[in-house]
Amino acid sequence: MQKIAILGTGTVGQTFGTRLAGLGHEVMIGTRNVQEKLTAPGKDGAKNGFASWHEKNPTIKLGTFEEAAAFGEMILNVSQGANTLTVLNLAKAKNLDGKILVDISNPLDFSKGMPPGLIPELSNFNSLGEEIQKTFPNAKVVKTLNTMWCGIMVDPALIKGDHVNYICGNDEAAKTTVKTFLKGFGWKDENILDLGDLSAARGTEAVLPVWLRIYGAKKMGAFNFNIVS
Amino acid sequence: MQKIAILGTGTVGQTFGTRLAGLGHEVMIGTRNVQEKLTAPGKDGAKNGFASWHEKNPTIKLGTFEEAAAFGEMILNVSQGANTLTVLNLAKAKNLDGKILVDISNPLDFSKGMPPGLIPELSNFNSLGEEIQKTFPNAKVVKTLNTMWCGIMVDPALIKGDHVNYICGNDEAAKTTVKTFLKGFGWKDENILDLGDLSAARGTEAVLPVWLRIYGAKKMGAFNFNIVS
Repeated sequence: MQKIAILGTGTVGQTFGTRLAGLGHEVMIGTRNVQEKLTAPGKDGAKNGFASWHEKNPTIKLGTFEEAAAFGEMILNVSQGANTLTVLNLAKAKNLDGKILVDISNPLDFSKGMPPGLIPELSNFNSLGEEIQKTFPNAKVVKTLNTMWCGIMVDPALIKGDHVNYICGNDEAAKTTVKTFLKGFGWKDENILDLGDLSAARGTEAVLPVWLRIYGAKKMGAFNFNIVS
Repeated sequence: MQKIAILGTGTVGQTFGTRLAGLGHEVMIGTRNVQEKLTAPGKDGAKNGFASWHEKNPTIKLGTFEEAAAFGEMILNVSQGANTLTVLNLAKAKNLDGKILVDISNPLDFSKGMPPGLIPELSNFNSLGEEIQKTFPNAKVVKTLNTMWCGIMVDPALIKGDHVNYICGNDEAAKTTVKTFLKGFGWKDENILDLGDLSAARGTEAVLPVWLRIYGAKKMGAFNFNIVS
């Protein structure tokens, strides 16, 4: 079991929090301001979604991005792609150095309406994964799980049969550790496809545009891709 | 049976030519300069690949882009994405007007080495499919088949079981006609996924970056994606 930091409090962060705590890991979720996150009103003045979730998951620690990153032996980035570099700067490089940083985010650009595109400077001949690695050269960035709905990320058995999860990164040992971590969720070896170094994130982040179109056509996100030959 | 124009003489064009002729269609392949295409020396001074292919497929007509487009009741664009607008301009708008133009190309940008990215101005918040439609507003552009190796495009039974072919376009009747055309190759209704209007080409053309990484990892292109849930 490990100490795991989750940077991001949205649905993806909550999903990972619940699942990782259920697997026996010690989890701290990072956010900008813990008190504000717990007390900000939700829709119609009701308790906000994160506060409601935390009430049901009281063993999961909360902290600032910096506290969470300092706590974690492994760090999961599930912040929104447009905010990721800000979030990681708040987490501070010294808390990332030498650690595995699993990047699950996507550089979505909502500025031109729905469905979003990708942030131009973080796509095509660049990627968010690579930009994180350039900005935090001593972190071991491993990109994975970003090509599917979060329910499937942490419980691949939701889909019968085989379906693919891509992984890429520059540090082979870190990728091996993350593959073992993924197996804890139920991912089978043969469904984890190693695409090589982190530049492959240009490919896996570019899955989102077609994913979003399929989601639009099928009106549901509980699907994944399988590679058949 | 139909008169079909194929714009492009590469492997994709040859593959479609052989297959469509085999199905009984009348085919004309368009190129810039027919004589040059047949007589240009290949590697080591041997006959070039296109000329060798045409010797084995002598019933397939050759013509300029303009002649082929004038001939075709339906037109397949299999030119390289970077050349497509030039090719279609040579084919001339009057030969495309009112016709179905099946766009199978991808806006690959090889300028920064391998694997290629996408041409920035033809990707993300734009696509080659949409650019073609804007440039030739009276053509009925249908984007399909561009997300896989050409052998599978024309013979989906090469892969056992289900795998997906996306289709999108602004003209519903044209999409219906193209779906019937695809069934001629063996595509099953349930494996043709209609993603809506032509803006979905932003998604399907963006499959290439991950396709190319998978190709690199698997060292073979005879695969496709299946959507599982």
